[in-house]
Amino acid sequence: MTSADEPQTGTLAIVGVGLLGGSVALAAKQRGLCRHVIGIGRNAERLQAAVDAGVIDSYATNIADAEPAWNLVVVGTPVDRIVPDVRAIAERSRPGTLITDVGSVKGAICRDLSRGLPDSVHFVGSHPLAGSEKRGFEVATPDLFDGRVCVVTPAASSDAAAVERTISFWESLGSRVVRMVPDAHDVALATTSHVPHVVAAALAAALPESERDLAATGFRDTTRIASGDPDLWVAILLENAAAVEASLDRFDAALGAFREAIRKGDSGELKKHLELAKRSRDALK
Amino acid sequence: MTSADEPQTGTLAIVGVGLLGGSVALAAKQRGLCRHVIGIGRNAERLQAAVDAGVIDSYATNIADAEPAWNLVVVGTPVDRIVPDVRAIAERSRPGTLITDVGSVKGAICRDLSRGLPDSVHFVGSHPLAGSEKRGFEVATPDLFDGRVCVVTPAASSDAAAVERTISFWESLGSRVVRMVPDAHDVALATTSHVPHVVAAALAAALPESERDLAATGFRDTTRIASGDPDLWVAILLENAAAVEASLDRFDAALGAFREAIRKGDSGELKKHLELAKRSRDALK
Repeated sequence: MTSADEPQTGTLAIVGVGLLGGSVALAAKQRGLCRHVIGIGRNAERLQAAVDAGVIDSYATNIADAEPAWNLVVVGTPVDRIVPDVRAIAERSRPGTLITDVGSVKGAICRDLSRGLPDSVHFVGSHPLAGSEKRGFEVATPDLFDGRVCVVTPAASSDAAAVERTISFWESLGSRVVRMVPDAHDVALATTSHVPHVVAAALAAALPESERDLAATGFRDTTRIASGDPDLWVAILLENAAAVEASLDRFDAALGAFREAIRKGDSGELKKHLELAKRSRDALK
Repeated sequence: MTSADEPQTGTLAIVGVGLLGGSVALAAKQRGLCRHVIGIGRNAERLQAAVDAGVIDSYATNIADAEPAWNLVVVGTPVDRIVPDVRAIAERSRPGTLITDVGSVKGAICRDLSRGLPDSVHFVGSHPLAGSEKRGFEVATPDLFDGRVCVVTPAASSDAAAVERTISFWESLGSRVVRMVPDAHDVALATTSHVPHVVAAALAAALPESERDLAATGFRDTTRIASGDPDLWVAILLENAAAVEASLDRFDAALGAFREAIRKGDSGELKKHLELAKRSRDALK
């Protein structure tokens, strides 16, 4: 915890200024958690546009070129970029810098990054459960994390003060923090996010063009996430393949129970499954 | 078509005053398509509440007791009640009365009702693709059908003037009418509505209680329709079982393609499937 008149962070660096990174920047500025936000990415034109839009204050297109004024870094690049990006920025960071990320998969990333960083620089994994099928800093909002769960996933070797600082940062952005072991996060998210994505995509893929006119709000809601970026999702699904496959097995078993009841015309059995599903869904409201 | 100063319908009867029936009542009154709406149902208390809420003007709790002042009837009862309700109200109706419904399944209903009605009373099936996982006239709105597709499903034997009148009625409520053969409707809706419901229910059913906290907006959207009424959906799924099973086979094949790509770690193949899904979903916007 820091005193009320002093920002927790002087300069916040955001690596990958998209929906999530941009929303962290906006939320941290709006809540007075930092004085300056530097965006780091590859595309100068996009980064300048983010400056013009007031999402970040300055930018660098290369970690090696950036003046390392930051003491907190949020890495918002795709999951297959997080490890090299964290390593690169850790090399440039001053002692005491905390690095976290917003990746949807945590086990392999946290395992890899538990070794080989400079002693005085700390990485603690995070996954804010907020987002959209849309991309880009243009859809970033300062209230994206407000009231949402953020999973923080320390490794066994994580520095205790760095873990506390990570939790405190997300709480300051309005998140409700849930602390989990990285692999347990991946098992849970396979069921709550990755398998729903695959299922929504399969529904969308199985829709014949000739029947598009007859797809109403139910179909649209059920398949909305299938509009997500294919490259991001390839990386997520392959990074978490084992847990996704296991969760798909459980989904198949549940679907099979519905299917069997329909095939047999067993209204009692079908109603039982639909009631269980409704109770589970209603409990989320 | 009727003249602009004369309502198409003197009295509109709504059998089953729920979300859809109530919305038809509100929309028809607001657009001046009728002078009076009589609600017919089983529960006097609910019907009186619908009168008090201004959804209907009067009510009867028994078709046999109702003064048959109507010349248009919309049957909004569950799909397994539509055939007996249409037959009962047809017996009481004056010559020239048009009866339609809002059922989600059409083949068996339209086949059954193509025979045995009084000569001077006409039934034409309808399915407005509008609704919600919520129930009851309390959630009815006069603009529910505005800009939405309504499928009208004449039987081969349907009276041409009655078909035109049905189409004209839904268009007057703001719907875009698509005309289909009843069985073709059922095949298409199996894919665009019934299988998505089963899939959403299976996702919800497969969510362990311990992981509810980690279900964010993606999971919520994907499973929203699983909150639908189990009794309504038992009737729909069993009435359309053959088409639902065939469409589930196509869904399984699509899901299997994603799964195989994940199992093999084939990023190119997985991306191809995700891109196809995204294109299909984006085309709905």
